[in-house]
Amino acid sequence: MAKKVLIVYAHESPASFNAAAKDAAVASLTAQGCTVEVSDLYAMKFKAAATTEDITGGVKDAENFCYAKEIKLASEEGRLAEDIKKEQEKLKEADLVIFQFPMYWSSVPAIMKGWMDRVLGFAYAQEKRYSEGIFKDKKAMLSFTTDCPESVYSDTGINGDINVTLWPLQVFAPQIFWDPATGSPESRSSMLEGWRTRLQNLCGEATMYFAPLDYFDKEKGFLLKPEVKEKYASKECGLTVGIHMGKPLPANSQTKARV
Amino acid sequence: MAKKVLIVYAHESPASFNAAAKDAAVASLTAQGCTVEVSDLYAMKFKAAATTEDITGGVKDAENFCYAKEIKLASEEGRLAEDIKKEQEKLKEADLVIFQFPMYWSSVPAIMKGWMDRVLGFAYAQEKRYSEGIFKDKKAMLSFTTDCPESVYSDTGINGDINVTLWPLQVFAPQIFWDPATGSPESRSSMLEGWRTRLQNLCGEATMYFAPLDYFDKEKGFLLKPEVKEKYASKECGLTVGIHMGKPLPANSQTKARV
Repeated sequence: MAKKVLIVYAHESPASFNAAAKDAAVASLTAQGCTVEVSDLYAMKFKAAATTEDITGGVKDAENFCYAKEIKLASEEGRLAEDIKKEQEKLKEADLVIFQFPMYWSSVPAIMKGWMDRVLGFAYAQEKRYSEGIFKDKKAMLSFTTDCPESVYSDTGINGDINVTLWPLQVFAPQIFWDPATGSPESRSSMLEGWRTRLQNLCGEATMYFAPLDYFDKEKGFLLKPEVKEKYASKECGLTVGIHMGKPLPANSQTKARV
Repeated sequence: MAKKVLIVYAHESPASFNAAAKDAAVASLTAQGCTVEVSDLYAMKFKAAATTEDITGGVKDAENFCYAKEIKLASEEGRLAEDIKKEQEKLKEADLVIFQFPMYWSSVPAIMKGWMDRVLGFAYAQEKRYSEGIFKDKKAMLSFTTDCPESVYSDTGINGDINVTLWPLQVFAPQIFWDPATGSPESRSSMLEGWRTRLQNLCGEATMYFAPLDYFDKEKGFLLKPEVKEKYASKECGLTVGIHMGKPLPANSQTKARV
């Protein structure tokens, strides 16, 4: 059971479905004995843009400013802006991070992308990521609302397969609230009830599948090692949505844990 | 030949590769007789977060604030914040929009996501989109830098197929500068030279393929119509990356125009 949960929340209205989903998570997780911290990005007026101001004491290479490099260095030297430091402290403490947001243009709202761009910088490293990354013992998940029904995001729907949309964002099986605004109050209650039920055992859930770092050859541009390719050659589907090896995508691999 | 081009640009440093790519586009397109406008988001200190402040004269439903609905209404009634209005005017004028940015966490930087969230709101409509959307006669493309080589984003690379990553973002065949920071000055020059060459005929390029709106059944949750599904049933690959119909993804369909 996770003891510490951070909810990164991005909706302006306390009357929104997103607020209700966030409140449900706080209530349920607290009742389970978890310590829950909420970063309410709009209430905090969280700075979204990644800028040189995020680094105190001057940047190393102002002329040819590279945000990722500067932020990593500043992080090592304790020269990050206060708001970033605070979020990083919360993040370091957390066993589980839940991102709660309304989907805007098939992704997170800008204010939440800003949280990712600015706060996750210290974790950035080519050599240490995924199964070897500094977050490998943490769990994270997306919980979001759409403004369209599920069919629209299916593999024959007009927006295309939600698994593809979520690939660059994903971490842990998401909680998707399909178009709550269009449904009845009862359907919204029922969505929240489903969420509360899931929250009861969230921390005990299996995670989604991602390929481990040692499947890839660092010396050869992080491509799959030949022996791994061979192992999966006869399988019907690709390894993951992104690493599909030219084969059909594994079904629902970005929306459901592999059991 | 497009006459009016809008470049939405997101890098803080005038000495960056992104700045050079932007400058190359301005020079080349201007020399071709195009009118080029640049929205330099960092220089403009563009507000990234989508908030109630984007609507003047009060929101309709403050208690249950839905940004997409409010922004659409405010747009129809001329009640949008000045900075959004200005960008929308530029956008309406433009025949071609180029988004120039460094990729952050497999997507656009937050400041650019903010431009999309806030400025594109007026175009949002369930019934009018893609081939029937208000932008259907405009062209748009991504031009961006990565901090890793191309292999990392291949269908056997550790970050997975770039086609999958780009699916939710894409518009027109992108210009991808693979890891310029790691290369030699010569390799950077050569990347820019390739970009300049492409710019010579950018507006004459074929667009990427997206499924037209009339392929989908509005009454049935925007799923592919049965006759379309049947037509594509025997094909080896799916229709697009997102609308893959459970089949292998069409190769490079998010990075190259279909010729």
